[in-house]
Amino acid sequence: MKQSIHNLEISTRGQSLYEVTSAINEWVRRQRMQTGLLTIFCRHTSASLLIQENADPTVRSDLEAFFARLAPEDGPYHHDSEGPDDMPAHLRAALTQVQLSIPVVDGSLVLGTWQGIYLFEHRVRPHRRAIVLHLIGE
Amino acid sequence: MKQSIHNLEISTRGQSLYEVTSAINEWVRRQRMQTGLLTIFCRHTSASLLIQENADPTVRSDLEAFFARLAPEDGPYHHDSEGPDDMPAHLRAALTQVQLSIPVVDGSLVLGTWQGIYLFEHRVRPHRRAIVLHLIGE
Amino acid sequence: MKQSIHNLEISTRGQSLYEVTSAINEWVRRQRMQTGLLTIFCRHTSASLLIQENADPTVRSDLEAFFARLAPEDGPYHHDSEGPDDMPAHLRAALTQVQLSIPVVDGSLVLGTWQGIYLFEHRVRPHRRAIVLHLIGE
Repeated sequence: MKQSIHNLEISTRGQSLYEVTSAINEWVRRQRMQTGLLTIFCRHTSASLLIQENADPTVRSDLEAFFARLAPEDGPYHHDSEGPDDMPAHLRAALTQVQLSIPVVDGSLVLGTWQGIYLFEHRVRPHRRAIVLHLIGE
Repeated sequence: MKQSIHNLEISTRGQSLYEVTSAINEWVRRQRMQTGLLTIFCRHTSASLLIQENADPTVRSDLEAFFARLAPEDGPYHHDSEGPDDMPAHLRAALTQVQLSIPVVDGSLVLGTWQGIYLFEHRVRPHRRAIVLHLIGE
Repeated sequence: MKQSIHNLEISTRGQSLYEVTSAINEWVRRQRMQTGLLTIFCRHTSASLLIQENADPTVRSDLEAFFARLAPEDGPYHHDSEGPDDMPAHLRAALTQVQLSIPVVDGSLVLGTWQGIYLFEHRVRPHRRAIVLHLIGE
């Protein structure tokens, strides 16, 4: 049994879902483990992780619009020192995930046919986002 | 230290919470690990996982009604090619989990007294849902 | 490769976010593992876990107020046998997490600079909450 760790950096350009499936798949395959567990951890409180459909792009735009309505910029917030997009960013992150774990079988992630892994950027300005990958298995 | 993998198939008959605690508990016990970590992964984007109260059934019907109000069928969605229940299904899945990890102690999952594991089906028609179980421990 | 298990008990005094980062960090350091994966599991259905900003306290009060609006006490619920705060507690727990996994690198959790780990108590009365910590690594 062994472990591998990797730091993945993602440059974002505003509020959107950024697919990271390929980058993660490639790193997992390079570790050459047959069976294991991958954990993806997002080191931020205003960006998050989501597994969602990677086929029709309108699913992503509908997801983005839904979370923008659910946690709007013009809410009754007290925290506003970092700009009007910061508190809704925390709320949208709280409603989604900072961590995902995915089993590895036969050397590949067991993602379903339509599942893609996304970094969900909730801030308006460009950011460098740090994601930690941890793989355990053999 | 060793690992076990299992594919669990669940037949659903419309939008509802389907309890899978017994099936998962039985498989975990058969692996005869004293201490470990179980990961449950749902390979879909319109069905999800939830740990919730398994006592009063009105908790489940209230949960289903709440998510139906929060992500309604008649929302302002652009993705409608797969029927009016598809986009709200993606939203309800995004708000809940596709993955859960539960420690195993003394050969059993450390679920609390009132915790049950549920597959949350968000589509109207019957589906076959695939869940992957990964157990690591000894 | 080895595993450690710990039961953490948290006394809560009403609906709020209770930071547990220090208690968890200290236990992890005492296990003296260089690389590993920590899993935090909350054994309840009316309290949950959340990783959120640990700097400005108004972020926490805004988070609490947001979830109180999203799943209000006066909703159209059928489950009311345990008091008016019980069903919204289940809903707020369903919208957040019962489990979090965080990689350990160089003996420490890879939490980001502003990330704190919180127990989110959703009930009004004081409770004793049980959290299980599972660490695997070496």
